Amino acid sequence: MKRIEEEILKRGKILPGNVLKVNSFLNHQLDTKLLCIMADEWYELYKNDNINKIVTIEASGIALATIAGLKFNVPVVFAKKGVNLNADNCFSTTVYSYSKNRDYFISIEKEFLSSDDNVLIIDDFLANASAVLGLISLVKKAKANVVGVGIAIEKGFQPGGAILRRKGYRVESLAIVETMDYESQTIKFR
Amino acid sequence: MKRIEEEILKRGKILPGNVLKVNSFLNHQLDTKLLCIMADEWYELYKNDNINKIVTIEASGIALATIAGLKFNVPVVFAKKGVNLNADNCFSTTVYSYSKNRDYFISIEKEFLSSDDNVLIIDDFLANASAVLGLISLVKKAKANVVGVGIAIEKGFQPGGAILRRKGYRVESLAIVETMDYESQTIKFR
Repeated sequence: MKRIEEEILKRGKILPGNVLKVNSFLNHQLDTKLLCIMADEWYELYKNDNINKIVTIEASGIALATIAGLKFNVPVVFAKKGVNLNADNCFSTTVYSYSKNRDYFISIEKEFLSSDDNVLIIDDFLANASAVLGLISLVKKAKANVVGVGIAIEKGFQPGGAILRRKGYRVESLAIVETMDYESQTIKFR
Repeated sequence: MKRIEEEILKRGKILPGNVLKVNSFLNHQLDTKLLCIMADEWYELYKNDNINKIVTIEASGIALATIAGLKFNVPVVFAKKGVNLNADNCFSTTVYSYSKNRDYFISIEKEFLSSDDNVLIIDDFLANASAVLGLISLVKKAKANVVGVGIAIEKGFQPGGAILRRKGYRVESLAIVETMDYESQTIKFR
């Protein structure tokens, strides 16, 4: 999506270690107008798919998912991170964090996901797909249907997108970074 | 606000220890339409106050603040919780969590708050006001102005609201729970 690519070029910063910092508009400060444009795009892509729930993960996914929820006029559920305090009333799984080099629990209370749900999964970044695979696992534990995945920025040079598509999931990333270079501060999009 | 009180009565659950569980619409599953009604109310209350930034804290405040950001047409900044990794480029402070019985750091990167900012602070709950006082502290470190605070549900039987109002802050809570009782599952609003 041209507009998102432009914002990344204008406002993103490349840090060492393939880190793309976009916290001026996506995951610390939130440019709500831009988030609306992104949600509009996912709506266009998925509007005929009977989405009746949006699922994301705290914290960075919440803003995007909330605005998408408004567009689709459906409830949003965000998975909580942390210890698995009450397994009985939750769908839970373990997600590996590459940035923190450790596993963490994510969970959704059972009453908020059911076999009637047609779910769109939303997140800000797709790199190794750990978080999205964790969310898919929670949706499947509820016997709900994953219609597709909406990602703001996919790091195309990391394996997450290919892993999900190879498994047959529809992934709609609004910008796919093909390569990025810290020294020259340049980004190429797919 | 009548509508929020009705939703609390209909969908809230009182747990032991003065816990009011509203995660079916406010802080796990998000009823985006209801959140819009809440943001509309804050907009009516603060629309003449030249708000140019909304500040909240991850994770439960993000959805409300995002929709409020859309209504006010201003950026949203959410404070991050966790360790104080980089004090040089952040405004940081410590907040005491009564529910977890420990201190935690919150921080906002300096580039996202400045002395030009007229800030509305948004959060889902107000009980002891630890989080809001922490956010006020960050805003003051930036020499920005706190115009007021917008709260979804204030626990009127806990001291937070009184503490903030005694300090001269304008606090607009959409529902103020005066008393609640676990045995009878009854709630009275102020």
